[in-house]
Amino acid sequence: MDQVMTKKPHEMLAATLSQELDAVNVLIRKRMASEHAPRIPEVTAHLVEAGGKRLRPMLTLAAAKMCGYQGDHHLKLAATVEFIHTATLLHDDVVDESAQRRGRPTANLLWDNKSSVLVGDYLFARSFQLMVETGSLRVLDILANASATIAEGEVLQMTAASNLKTGEDIYLQVVRGKTAALFSAATEVGGVIAGASEAQVKALFDYGDALGIAFQIADDLLDYQGDSKATGKNVGDDFRERKLTLPVIKAVAQATEEERAFWTRTIEKGRQQDGDLEQALALMAKYGTLEATREDACRWAAKAKAALEALPDHEIRSMLSDLADYVVSRLS
Amino acid sequence: MDQVMTKKPHEMLAATLSQELDAVNVLIRKRMASEHAPRIPEVTAHLVEAGGKRLRPMLTLAAAKMCGYQGDHHLKLAATVEFIHTATLLHDDVVDESAQRRGRPTANLLWDNKSSVLVGDYLFARSFQLMVETGSLRVLDILANASATIAEGEVLQMTAASNLKTGEDIYLQVVRGKTAALFSAATEVGGVIAGASEAQVKALFDYGDALGIAFQIADDLLDYQGDSKATGKNVGDDFRERKLTLPVIKAVAQATEEERAFWTRTIEKGRQQDGDLEQALALMAKYGTLEATREDACRWAAKAKAALEALPDHEIRSMLSDLADYVVSRLS
Repeated sequence: MDQVMTKKPHEMLAATLSQELDAVNVLIRKRMASEHAPRIPEVTAHLVEAGGKRLRPMLTLAAAKMCGYQGDHHLKLAATVEFIHTATLLHDDVVDESAQRRGRPTANLLWDNKSSVLVGDYLFARSFQLMVETGSLRVLDILANASATIAEGEVLQMTAASNLKTGEDIYLQVVRGKTAALFSAATEVGGVIAGASEAQVKALFDYGDALGIAFQIADDLLDYQGDSKATGKNVGDDFRERKLTLPVIKAVAQATEEERAFWTRTIEKGRQQDGDLEQALALMAKYGTLEATREDACRWAAKAKAALEALPDHEIRSMLSDLADYVVSRLS
Repeated sequence: MDQVMTKKPHEMLAATLSQELDAVNVLIRKRMASEHAPRIPEVTAHLVEAGGKRLRPMLTLAAAKMCGYQGDHHLKLAATVEFIHTATLLHDDVVDESAQRRGRPTANLLWDNKSSVLVGDYLFARSFQLMVETGSLRVLDILANASATIAEGEVLQMTAASNLKTGEDIYLQVVRGKTAALFSAATEVGGVIAGASEAQVKALFDYGDALGIAFQIADDLLDYQGDSKATGKNVGDDFRERKLTLPVIKAVAQATEEERAFWTRTIEKGRQQDGDLEQALALMAKYGTLEATREDACRWAAKAKAALEALPDHEIRSMLSDLADYVVSRLS
C-alpha cells in the first residue's frame, strides 16, 4: 500500500485508466500513420513516444468514466486532444526556435521547420477526422472554439509578450490559449460524450479551465524560483527571452519611474546586461510578486477543486482533486 | 453584349454570383477579426485583400446555387474554404521560404515566419468554427478528409519532390493535396448543403477533383513553357527548385542511363550549372513530354466537363464547363 500511497495523482489516474490509455495509444499510433509520407509518423513518433504524461487525454478519459460513460468515443476524443496538443508543440517549437523539448532535440532541429509546420497541420487534420467520427456536433463546437482560443492566445503571446502595457487580463487570455483551453475542452468533451447533465458539463469545464490556469501560472513562477534539475529550465529563461509573465507583470504594475525604465530596457528593448536578472528578482522580492503569484496559482487550484463538488462521488474525482493540489504543491 | 462575351469564365461566374460573393467577403472580414491580437487581421488582410480570384468560394456558391439552395449556409462554407486556402498559403510560404505571392511580398517576409504559422493556425480554427455552424456532420466529414489529404500531400511533396523514384501516381497524390482536394471539397459541400441527390453530389466531387488536377497540371506545364509576364514566374523555376513535376517525371521514366545521371545530378543532388535548364528542355522535347502533359491536362478538363452532365441544366453549369476549357486553353 505504501508504494501506492506515494504515487503522484497523475500516476494514480494513469493506473486507474491504464486500459483506456493503452487503447488510446494504439489509436494514436494507428492514426498518425501515412502510407506514402513516412516523414509524418517519424516526426510524430519523436514527440508522441517521448514520454509525455498524456495528461490531456487522461483528463478526457477521467471525465467520461466519472460520468459513467460506457461507449468508446472517449478514446477517439482522448486521441484528438493529444493530437491537437502535439500539433501545437510542433508549431510552438518553430515559433520559439526551440532546440529542446522534454530533454530531447526538437523536431525542427532533427528534421526542419518545414516538417514541423506540415506535420503539425497533418495532426490537426487527423484530430479533426477523429472528432467528426464521434458524430457529436456539440463536441465539434467545443473543440472548434478551443482551437480558436489556442491559436489566438499564441498570436497574442507573440505580440504582447514584450509589451509593458500587457496587464493581468491579457496574461490570463494568453494562459487560456497556451494551456487552459485544451484542458477545459478535454474535460468538457468527456462529460458531453458521457451524456452528463448541464451542471456537470459546466463543472468539468470549470475544473479544466482552473486547473490549466493554475498549472501555467505555477510553470511561470517556477521559471523564477525553480530548481533547474526538476524543471529542466534555467532560472530566468523567461526574463532572458523577454517574456512578460505574472511575477513581472505584478512588479511592473507597481514600479517607480526608475524601475519602469529598467523593465523597458530589459524586456521591451531587450538590452540586457550582467546583473539584470538579479535586479529583476530583487524588484519582484521588493513587491512580493512571487508570493502573490503563488497565491494566485493556489486560488485557481482551489477553484478547480470546488468545481468538482458538482460531480459524482467517484475515486477519479478524488484523484482529480489531488491533481489540483499537486500542481501548486511544487511551489515554495 | 460583346463585352460580356469576352469575359473569362471565372469573371462570368463572379458576375452571376456577385451578391453572394459580396456577402462572403463581409463574412470573411468579420471572422478574421480578433479583439486582442491585431496582428491576425493585419496578416490575413494582406493575403485576403490581395485580389485573389476567390475561385474556391465561388465553386461552393456555384454548386449550391446550381442545385437550388435557398438558405445561407453556403456563404459560411464559401468563407470556410477561402480561410483554409489562405491558411495553406501562409504555411506554404514558410515552407517554401517564398518572398513573393501574387506579385506582392509574402507575409513571412513582411512580418515573420512566426506570424505566418500562427495566423495560419488561427484561420484553420476559424474555418472549423464556421463549418460547425452549418450543423451538417456530412459537411464536416468532407472537410476533415480534405484537410488530411491537403496536409498529407504537402508532406509528400516535401519528401518526394526531389526523389527520382517519384512516379505519376505519387505526383497525382501531391496534386490532389496541393489543389484538387480543396476544389472537390468546395464543390461537394455546396451540393450537400443544397440537399442535392447522391448522384449530383458525386458529380460535383468529380468535377472539382478533375478541374483541380487539370489546373495544377497546367500550372506545372506553364512553368516550362509559359510567358513569365502572364504567369508571374520564370521559365524553369520548378527545375531550379528541384521539384519533380509531370513533364520531368515523364522524361525520367524514359531516360537512358546517361540521361538518368543528368536528372540525378540536377534534381536529386541539386548540382546545377549553366545550360542545364536547356538540356532538361531538350530531353523533354526528345520524348514529347510537354505535349503528353498537355494531353493529360486536357483529359482531366474533359473529365470535369463530363461530370457536369449529371447536374441540372443551369446557366452556372455552362460557366463551370467553360471554366474547365479555360484552364487548359492557356496551354500551347
